[in-house]
This record gives sequence, C-alpha cells and structure tokens, in this order.
Amino acid sequence: MSDNISFVLQSVGCVSYDHRPIPEIRDDEVLVQVKKTGICGSDVHYVKHGRIGDFIVESPMVLGHESSGVVSKVGSRVRSIRPGDRVAMEPGVFCRKCEFCRTGRYQLCHDMAFAATPPYDGTLTRYYRLPEDLLYILPENVSLEDGAMLEPLSVGVHSVSTLAKFQPAQSIVIFGCGPVGLLCMAVAKAIGASRIVAVDIVQSRLDFAKTYAATDVFRPPPFQEGESKIAYSKRSADLLRANLGLEDRGIKAIDVVIDASGAEVSIQTGILIIKVGGTFVQVGMGQPEVVIPISAVLAKELVIKGSFRYGPGDYRLALALVAQKKVDLQPLVTHRFKFEDAAKAFDATMKGCSDDGRGLIKAIISGPGVPIDDV
Amino acid sequence: MSDNISFVLQSVGCVSYDHRPIPEIRDDEVLVQVKKTGICGSDVHYVKHGRIGDFIVESPMVLGHESSGVVSKVGSRVRSIRPGDRVAMEPGVFCRKCEFCRTGRYQLCHDMAFAATPPYDGTLTRYYRLPEDLLYILPENVSLEDGAMLEPLSVGVHSVSTLAKFQPAQSIVIFGCGPVGLLCMAVAKAIGASRIVAVDIVQSRLDFAKTYAATDVFRPPPFQEGESKIAYSKRSADLLRANLGLEDRGIKAIDVVIDASGAEVSIQTGILIIKVGGTFVQVGMGQPEVVIPISAVLAKELVIKGSFRYGPGDYRLALALVAQKKVDLQPLVTHRFKFEDAAKAFDATMKGCSDDGRGLIKAIISGPGVPIDDV
Amino acid sequence: MSDNISFVLQSVGCVSYDHRPIPEIRDDEVLVQVKKTGICGSDVHYVKHGRIGDFIVESPMVLGHESSGVVSKVGSRVRSIRPGDRVAMEPGVFCRKCEFCRTGRYQLCHDMAFAATPPYDGTLTRYYRLPEDLLYILPENVSLEDGAMLEPLSVGVHSVSTLAKFQPAQSIVIFGCGPVGLLCMAVAKAIGASRIVAVDIVQSRLDFAKTYAATDVFRPPPFQEGESKIAYSKRSADLLRANLGLEDRGIKAIDVVIDASGAEVSIQTGILIIKVGGTFVQVGMGQPEVVIPISAVLAKELVIKGSFRYGPGDYRLALALVAQKKVDLQPLVTHRFKFEDAAKAFDATMKGCSDDGRGLIKAIISGPGVPIDDV
Amino acid sequence: MSDNISFVLQSVGCVSYDHRPIPEIRDDEVLVQVKKTGICGSDVHYVKHGRIGDFIVESPMVLGHESSGVVSKVGSRVRSIRPGDRVAMEPGVFCRKCEFCRTGRYQLCHDMAFAATPPYDGTLTRYYRLPEDLLYILPENVSLEDGAMLEPLSVGVHSVSTLAKFQPAQSIVIFGCGPVGLLCMAVAKAIGASRIVAVDIVQSRLDFAKTYAATDVFRPPPFQEGESKIAYSKRSADLLRANLGLEDRGIKAIDVVIDASGAEVSIQTGILIIKVGGTFVQVGMGQPEVVIPISAVLAKELVIKGSFRYGPGDYRLALALVAQKKVDLQPLVTHRFKFEDAAKAFDATMKGCSDDGRGLIKAIISGPGVPIDDV
Repeated sequence: MSDNISFVLQSVGCVSYDHRPIPEIRDDEVLVQVKKTGICGSDVHYVKHGRIGDFIVESPMVLGHESSGVVSKVGSRVRSIRPGDRVAMEPGVFCRKCEFCRTGRYQLCHDMAFAATPPYDGTLTRYYRLPEDLLYILPENVSLEDGAMLEPLSVGVHSVSTLAKFQPAQSIVIFGCGPVGLLCMAVAKAIGASRIVAVDIVQSRLDFAKTYAATDVFRPPPFQEGESKIAYSKRSADLLRANLGLEDRGIKAIDVVIDASGAEVSIQTGILIIKVGGTFVQVGMGQPEVVIPISAVLAKELVIKGSFRYGPGDYRLALALVAQKKVDLQPLVTHRFKFEDAAKAFDATMKGCSDDGRGLIKAIISGPGVPIDDV
Repeated sequence: MSDNISFVLQSVGCVSYDHRPIPEIRDDEVLVQVKKTGICGSDVHYVKHGRIGDFIVESPMVLGHESSGVVSKVGSRVRSIRPGDRVAMEPGVFCRKCEFCRTGRYQLCHDMAFAATPPYDGTLTRYYRLPEDLLYILPENVSLEDGAMLEPLSVGVHSVSTLAKFQPAQSIVIFGCGPVGLLCMAVAKAIGASRIVAVDIVQSRLDFAKTYAATDVFRPPPFQEGESKIAYSKRSADLLRANLGLEDRGIKAIDVVIDASGAEVSIQTGILIIKVGGTFVQVGMGQPEVVIPISAVLAKELVIKGSFRYGPGDYRLALALVAQKKVDLQPLVTHRFKFEDAAKAFDATMKGCSDDGRGLIKAIISGPGVPIDDV
Repeated sequence: MSDNISFVLQSVGCVSYDHRPIPEIRDDEVLVQVKKTGICGSDVHYVKHGRIGDFIVESPMVLGHESSGVVSKVGSRVRSIRPGDRVAMEPGVFCRKCEFCRTGRYQLCHDMAFAATPPYDGTLTRYYRLPEDLLYILPENVSLEDGAMLEPLSVGVHSVSTLAKFQPAQSIVIFGCGPVGLLCMAVAKAIGASRIVAVDIVQSRLDFAKTYAATDVFRPPPFQEGESKIAYSKRSADLLRANLGLEDRGIKAIDVVIDASGAEVSIQTGILIIKVGGTFVQVGMGQPEVVIPISAVLAKELVIKGSFRYGPGDYRLALALVAQKKVDLQPLVTHRFKFEDAAKAFDATMKGCSDDGRGLIKAIISGPGVPIDDV
Repeated sequence: MSDNISFVLQSVGCVSYDHRPIPEIRDDEVLVQVKKTGICGSDVHYVKHGRIGDFIVESPMVLGHESSGVVSKVGSRVRSIRPGDRVAMEPGVFCRKCEFCRTGRYQLCHDMAFAATPPYDGTLTRYYRLPEDLLYILPENVSLEDGAMLEPLSVGVHSVSTLAKFQPAQSIVIFGCGPVGLLCMAVAKAIGASRIVAVDIVQSRLDFAKTYAATDVFRPPPFQEGESKIAYSKRSADLLRANLGLEDRGIKAIDVVIDASGAEVSIQTGILIIKVGGTFVQVGMGQPEVVIPISAVLAKELVIKGSFRYGPGDYRLALALVAQKKVDLQPLVTHRFKFEDAAKAFDATMKGCSDDGRGLIKAIISGPGVPIDDV
C-alpha cells in the first residue's frame, strides 16, 4: 500500500499508470486513500483535447476529481477527522485570502488548485492530500459511491439552490439530461418543485429523466431546412409552451430555467419560455459565443447567471440531501470499473455507452486495489 | 383653460394638435395641469416607426411621458396632495393586484397603463389624470424641469441602485452617453463611485460626460476591414483594459457595467471587461438578438440583468438625490420649446441637434400656455 | 339562503347571532358562501377581553377570519374565478397604494381591513365579500377544511420561509406547540429540516408534536424557588443544549429559532441556544415587554425578526405545500362544530378541550346550513 | 530599533513597558512598524476590569488594536505589499477554514486571534506581525492617524452599511455620541442620509455631533421620580417624535436606528420610534440583559441585528470613504500622546478629558520613537 500508483494523462489522447510519491501532509491536512472516483465530461475533454478554454495540459497530469475515500493519516492540528473515517473529497483548494475567498465565493478564487485542472494533479491515485475542511464525513447510510457523486451533485445544488434560489412550489425547466442536468432536477425535486420539465434531443435520456425526477419532458422538434437557429428556437419555444400549457405569468409560468446542455438553441429557447421576472442559470459549457434574444431579457427583466463549480455550503447541502434520502444518486451510477480498467471507463464515457451498448450516465472507477462492489 | 389641447401622433410620421376632453377624476385620483414634458427616444421612435416591439400604435395617441405639473383638482379620498402642489408625475398606472404588483416589481405588471405606450395617451396635453400615489410633491429647490427629468433619472436609479445594487467605492463602466447613460453616471456618482468610465463613439458626448459625472472616458477604436463583431469587441476590451489599467479582480477591476447603448459590440465589450463575479445591467434597447461571449459569463460567474422602466421606490430616490443636490439635472436640459413648437422638439431630438447645430441632450416642451422660462 | 346570518361579538363576553345584509360586490370583487372557519386565539381573545393591543372592539363585530368557501357571485371584471369554485379566503384587504403595499410587504399596510379585527367584520357569516386576488382556488385534493387552515399555515410559511429564510438541511427549534408552532414545524419539515425541536411545558402537546412533525422534543424544567426568569432560562438552555447535544457552531448548532409561545422565558432560552449568526423569529404574542439577553444578540451577531400575519406569496406557498402533500393539516383539526354551535367552539378553544375532555388543537365551525362532514 | 518595546497590561489596573521579542514572520506575513494607535473603550475596560464578558486577561497582554504603521519586512510569498508602504492594520486574524470564514462572516470565527483580546497581544508595540491580506495600503491623502481610525470607522461601516443596509435618502437615529456613534453618523452621511438624528444625554457631545455629521440632535428628558425605565422610554420616544415631527410610516419615519450607547433606555426608545418595517442595529455594549418592547417588534415587524466588530469588505469601504473625502476622521482625534505617555492616554480616555479639562473623543498614541506630529 506504500505505492502511490496514479492514472495519468501524458499528452493528448495518451494515458498510462505512473508511480508517484505519496504526498506529505501538513499539520492541517489529511491523507485520504481514494476509494471511488466518478468520470466527468471535463476529464474526458482533457484526454481528447488537452485543454479546456485557457486551461492547457502542459505536463503529465493525474486525472479525476469526483472522489471519496477513507482517511489514512491526519495532520497534527486536525481535530474533526480521524483515520478510518469515510469521506467525500471536495477537490478544489482555494487561497483563503483573496476577496472572493473572504466574501463567500471561493469558487472564483484565482489561485484555486483544483484536482485534474492543469497544472494540478487529480484523484485517480491511491493517496490524495486535502485540507481538513474540504472533507465531509459520510454518515453510515451514504455509500462511498454516493460520496464521489457529491461532486456533480454540488454543481446542481450550486446552480439550483445557491444561484437560482429555487424555492418550494416553484417550477423549473432544465435543458440537457446528462449527469449535471439530472442532478439539477434531483435538487429541484428535493426542494419541492411544483413542476420539473426535462428537455433533451435524445428520447432515451428523457425517458430516464422522467423515471428519475422530471414531471414533464420535452423533445425539441427537428431543424427545418434553411431555418436560422433563432427562428428554430422560437418555434421550439412555441411548441414547448403549447405542449405544457405554459404562460408568461402566474402559476402556469416557469420560474427558473437551467441550461445544462451548453447548446445555443437551448439557451435561446430557455430565455424565450421563462417567466417574466424569472431567473436563468447557465451551467452547461458549449461554444464560447452564442446569440441570445436580448429583447426578451430586457422586456421580461430577466436575471441570467453563470454557474461555475460550487462554493461554500454546497457540498454540505448536497450531503444532507443524500443523507436525508431526498436525493437518490444510485440510479445514475450505470457503470463501474476497476482501477486497472480506468481507460475503459474513459472510453465508455466518451462513447456514452459500454461495449455491450448499455447507455452510460456515470462511470465510477474504484481506487487501486479497491473491489468494484465495495461501495 | 377648460380646453384639453393635446399633441397627438395620428399615424406614422404624422402629428397634430387635437382637442380632447378634460379627464374626469375618480375619488383617489388627481388632475394635474402639465407644465413640463421631456422628449424621450421612445416618443421619437413611435413617431418614426409607429411601434416599439409588440407595442403598435393603432389609433391616434397623445405623446409624452416625462412630465411634471401643478395640481388642479383632487378626488374626495385624496389626502396627501392639494391643488396648487407642484408635482412630478410617474407615468405608469399598474393593476395593483397581480403577482408583480403585490411583490414589489410593478414595472412587470401586464396590465400597466403607461403614458404614450399604445393604446394609452401620454402627457403632452393640458390636463392629465393620475392616482395620488404616482405623484411626488416637489420641494422648493426642485424645479418643474427637474420634476420632468425625474422620469429618466428613475431609469438610472432603477438600473444602478435597484438592480446593480451599486455601493459606495465600487467602480462602474457605462456604455452610451445619451440621457439614460448620463443619468446612470449621475446616480453612480451620487452613491459614491470610486470610478465612473463613460464609453461612446462620439467624442463630444464623451467630453460632456467627463464634465458631468465620469471620471474616465473611452472611445472605442474604429472597426477594421473584415473584422467580426466579437473580434472587434475583444480588441476594444483589451484597449479599454490597457488604457485604464483594469484587472479582472481586486480594486482595479470594474464591479458593475451598464449598457445604455443597445449596441451589440458594447454588450460584448462590457461582458469581457467586467470583474470576476460582477454585475452587468442591460438598459439600452437595440437589435432584438445579440451575440454574447457566454464562456465569460460562465467562467466569471457573472450576473446579467435586464432593466425595464422603474419600480417601487425609484422615483422617490430620484427625487431625494435631486433635492439633496447629489444629482444635477440642469446640464442635461439643452433645449426648450413652447407647446405649439412640439413638432420642432421632436425634430431636434431625432436629429440630435437644433437647427442652429447645437447638440441636443434633452428637449423639454412646456405645457399649453406655459412660458418656456417658467421652470 | 338570502339571509346573511352572522356570529357577532356584541360586547366583552357576549356573543349572538345577527341578521346582516348580504354584501354588495364591486366589479373586481367576489361573493363567497363561507363553508368552514377555524377559530384562532385572537378570536377568543377579543371575546374575552374586547381588545388586542390598540385594536379595541367598540361596536358589534362579526367574528372569524380563517375561512374557505364556495364562490357565489363574481363582479363584472373578475376573470380568474367563477361561481362554484372552492376557494381559500385570505382575510386582509390592503390599500394597494402605500409604501408597504407597493414594496411587497402588504402585511404592514396601515389601512388594512382585516376580518374580525375591529372595526372590520369577520367571516363567521353566510356570505363574505373579497377582492378576486385574495381568493385561492382549491385543487380537488385540498379540502374546504384545509382551505380554512391555510390561514394559520400562512403564518407558519411567513415566519419560517419568508422571514427566517429556512433552507433544506437546516435545523430549527420551535417554542410553543399550539397551532402556529405546529404549523411552523410542518413548514420546516416540508422544506427539508435536518432537525426540528419542539419545546412546550405540556407533555401531551410535545407528544403530538413528535407524531406530527418534530424530530426531537424538550420539556423545560420546573421553576426553582426564588429563581429569576433569566437564571431559569440559562438553566433551561443548558439542559436543552445537553439533552440534544447542541453546540454554538457547526452542524450540531441550531440555525433558526421560532418563538410561537410569547413566553418571556422561551424568548430568552431561544436567544441563548441559537447558533452564532443565527436567526430568531418572534411570532407568538405575550406580554408587551420582555427581558432579553442582549449580550448574546451582540456577541453572536443574531438577527431577531418580528413576524406579523403574512404577505405576498405566503398563502400561495401554503396552498402548494398542502396540494403537494408536503404538509398535512388534517391531524390538527380535532373538533368540528355546526354554525349554531359556534359559542361551543369558542368555549372549547378557550378551555383547550371539549366537554368530554378531549384535547383541542383547532376547532372548525361550518358555515350556516353547512353539514359538519361536508369537508 | 531592534527592540520591541510594548505597553503591557500586567494585571487589573497595572500597566508597564515590557521588552518583547520582535516577531518572526511566516512567508505570507508582514512585519509592520506601528506608528499610530487609537485607544478604545475596550482597551480601557480591560485595564479597569481585567475582562470583557468571557474574555479574561489571565497573563500579561500588550494593549491596543486600532493601528497603522509602515511596513518593515515582508514574507517570501507576499506580493501586494512592500517595505516602506504605509498601511492600516486590520487587527483580527481569523482561521479561514470554519463555516463563518468560508461564508463571508469571518467576524464570527471562533478561533479569531484579535489584537488585545486575551490571550492575544495587541499593537502598542514597536513591531507587529499580520498576514498580508489584513493590511491596507494608505493612499497619499490618507494620514497614518486616519489609518489607525479606520478600525472604529469599520465598526460604523459594518453597522450602518453591511448590517443595516443603509441606502441613500434614508433616515437614521443614532443613540450615543462616542466615537462609534459619531462614526456611524459619518457613514450615514457619506451614503447620503436624508436625516441623521444624534441622541445623547450630554449636551456638549450633541453639539459636536451637530457640527460633525448630524442633521438633528435630541437630548432625552431627565428621569422622573419613581418612573420605570419603560415608562421613561415611552415618554422619551413621544418627545423625540414630537420634536422631530416623526411618523410611523412614510418619509417622516425613521428607517434605521443604531444604538451605540448600550443603554437600556436607548434601546427601548429606539425600538419605539423606529418606522414600521425598520431595522435596528445594536452595536453598543452595556448591561447583559435589557427589557425590550417586544410587542412593537411584532406589530411593526422589525428586524433587530447584533453588530460584532466588522467583516469582509468593511475595512476596504472605510478606507475608500476616507480617501474619497466622504468621511473626515480628523475632527475626532482630540488628543495625541507619545509612546512613553501611553498611561496618560488611558487615563484621559477613562475620564473623558485631559488634565486641562479639554473633552476627549479619541486619543492616539504614537509608536515607540514616533513623533506626535508625524501623522
């Protein structure tokens, strides 16, 4: 167990196992033996493209950032955590000193060291080091897989609760039924949404959303020959409005829209169908520039918010929702891989299904030597 | 004085004087003799195009909505206002019963009867009727012209204070140096901005902004052959950043951006130069769809808000700022016209200058029979 | 059915049935045939004392304000409601014009005409008139009794959600297990409280709270000979802290305290046990002056809020919680009376039990001619 | 200059000079040569009583916490500050890891190491060590005395701006005209108060407040034989209301009350005169328990907030207000002492005047070897 074997992105498209030193911990840090790691679209993106926006992989980088594990060792000043504790691992270490860290928005910290965001190594390794306050002890009824899934759930909590300030009895439309979209729906359901509309272009994803958390689903129409995106979006919005009986005001209006797709037409359609005075949150990443119907933003006095990772309190709330059984993460874990099969997990995530054709939502890779069924 | 002569838009491009009946007031209403009316871009737009968005002039409509006057008669249940009071006139009568009226955002009321927005008549008339609570008694040190100017000032208050929640010592960039942009600057100055950057493509407007309220000005570069708008905006943003020593974080960053121009490149540049975590308010109306750099909205976790007219408290605060001498409205009133010269006022506003070539910021038309110098 | 028989407080302690005229409705009003009315502590207080604070009964007043019914007639401009609709009746008509009505806090309107608050008549009558926007159509799965109970539930919504801004996974302590305290617990449970501690001096009320919504209960110790109230409260707070394992910070701390008892020692104990930075809401009415440990307010930087009735959105949310089955109101309706037995309902509410000794939480009086079992 | 001479509280009432070692700085810390230190009521209280609440002086402690100085040395990772910089020193080092530090309320951090709060040494010493982010570089137009005064000004900023959310054109009543009360007035003036009412029982303090920032002053009446405190407060409130023409609502009502006196009757009077829906902030420390008119808290739906020190952004705003000349701190610095006369400064602060009878507002002690007139 003294070896710190790690799954490393060497260069674009090229991954391998490296033997890295076991990290030394400082007196306020904790060494965690990583047990479960979910694979995220951003991990796959780095493997395929070697970069996301301005973050460029310039030297070998350990992958993975959605993890849980068991505490192996604690620093001398650590008080709340002990060896043997099962923990979820919040993967971004912030500076604690800048304006953002001081005012409760540490996700905007410029000096953030985030796992598997270059140049920082990720969690697909045996031992990972984190400060005490970024670990969350899992109660008995929360599994290690759930612990790893708290990371994307925190993205949903941040978008739906922290940013959109979603309240009981409000209604929401969520574009995109990937893991983040589904988890936004789960959060909305936990808070007490009156209506949760899932939108996606893949019927099987809508079917899953309906069984998971959505009250309604909508599959946008196909594009028409020569139609502009905005014309398409207007047509799509009209159809959505008609299908669901939506209005611009009152209880038949949509209070909150989340775009978890990153698609330009989703953003357009979302802005068009949202209620007067409503809140739109953009969490999906797609093309860098999009056309938006700014006249609707003005006339309806909309609020549009960008959502970036998660901040103070989001992991805590995500854990509470799971522990209280208000959010069930298990249906999303469709695939499990051993550490030595990590590359297969990436392949399956890239393709959206495993070799047997079974649709993938989330793949979890067990830590080195950890059995798949030790959840 | 028994005749209610009015300046009426008969059809696109065609205005004339009509004799309208003097309105009957209900027991909670007040009849005001209109003394001063400012001309707004929207008035001119209706004359030229007969519509703004979905608001279409389908029958003759009295123009004007930025007004002040003297109370002529009050209803039986009116308690706070008496004949002879000098008052500013908030020109939008809301339903008081819908969700928005009840929750403090009456500007979003669907049944809003707003002066000179079809089908509702405006204030370029001798007598105008309003409910008691939409009139604001002017203290002695606030002129009738100031009273008329409270309308556009309220737009600035709404954008800068109510929506952007601008605080003392924050910094702001305002795109567009028309009346609304200038009044946004005035509000930012009154609140205690550390820095107010005015952006416009017309040097004379920047010069005025600098003498009026801006601490810095920026004139974007000319377009280059074959350059896309977004490429231009990036170049413009870089130049603005360099010229003013702006950064993305800290005290050299821009907390708030207001676009009062409606120009696509202004919106793009504004989103690019704003601080991480900042707030962008769109108040200028332009083309219905624009390209925005959504990746910056995400990565900086920006908040973008549409600003529509003004809501509860905005007129009150606008008046207080003027009464306390924190905002000086007089420099903006560049042109004054008699009621019988109303058409000339519209012409000059359309052209941006009077026949003598003197640049126009705001034209004020006196009420029927009211001398120009009775301010 | 043409007779508007009403249950009237004639003078202190003296009630009787009067024949009142059926109200004329204005064009934006609705006439409701009252079906169910809950009896509130304030109704009983008026009967016993003829006043609450500055509100003094100076002429005969119809009692009752927690009501539901069926629409009998609608004004010419009413659009959203039709005869035959089953509705909950929000019993306070506000002026719609003052600062508070305009800024979303109509509960503070000075000209509020509130049912059964002198000099305004209440709802224990056959026909009652209300503006359209104060009626809430009940979906099929919400009973008329539930509709009446929305009134006290809205008090709970206002205190817990609107004022305390209670969020999922937070913890709460509620002092007082009368109807309002219990309904505050129900709201906290619906929002997703991690812990709901009920405090009362009557064991049977705690027992009920535990079966209804509380996760923990606490019965304060008996007073000791010669002990001051504040000394008692400190001892009580220590005991509560010890029994429940409470701390001043972190996940074992109490985020929100609601006092629904009005008792001085409850207020003191609540302030002492609440978390650093927590929010305390006072909704219970008791003696006009109380001693509070202001040093704790300072050192913990607490927020203390008074809660008065309910405002915009509270009734709407209350209804949604019931319709979504997140709040169950039926267990609270312990006693039902025919209209002709209204005085018995008041007696039982006063005594806290019926003649047969059965403990009373809420008594509902059916409207004139309405059977008890027509719920 | 190598000697770190310090002014030390040895035991209750006993102070002396000690030679302490010069602190070693860590790589993110800065060593500051202290130039100016203001004396605060809490310093004096520790000297007289050896404790404040639960904070007990159990071993010798260097006094002083309102300081500015010149940077002497910086750690290897310090980027924003250089030797020779003139800086204001925020005197509380927080843990950066707890819930409060992470959510933007570091003033509530349990592990706060605050200068001259036992067991932590204060700033009346030659060299003092602080983390980089607690130092604020003073622009040229801000003196070292101003820099020291930023500490109490930040208390005013925290109370008036951060907690009361005071807005332009609002009105405020401030009880107590000591340094904190006066600085609250200064902040209210800087923000643009329409009315600032100073209340104190000492006429000379009211006179000063009037010249400094208050628009109105009120001296409460003398107590009457046998009158209860609450009866006195009601009488006092009536008088205040009558003298100033105050109402409960509208523009003649008081939006915000700050109690900077700690006196029970001030708190009572403040709650009685504040506007319906208003905000009351308690910043003055006095007796641990007080009687409050809770019925007014309920009926007016007041918000009462405890104010404890200052949090993120408060020092920054305080500095900006001084640099922009919106707050003038000089009039408050009435007395200046050399380091070797520190005891005299404490004596004068205790007595409220110097030996020559001149009234004291704030005494500033220069650092060891620093001339009094090197401001």
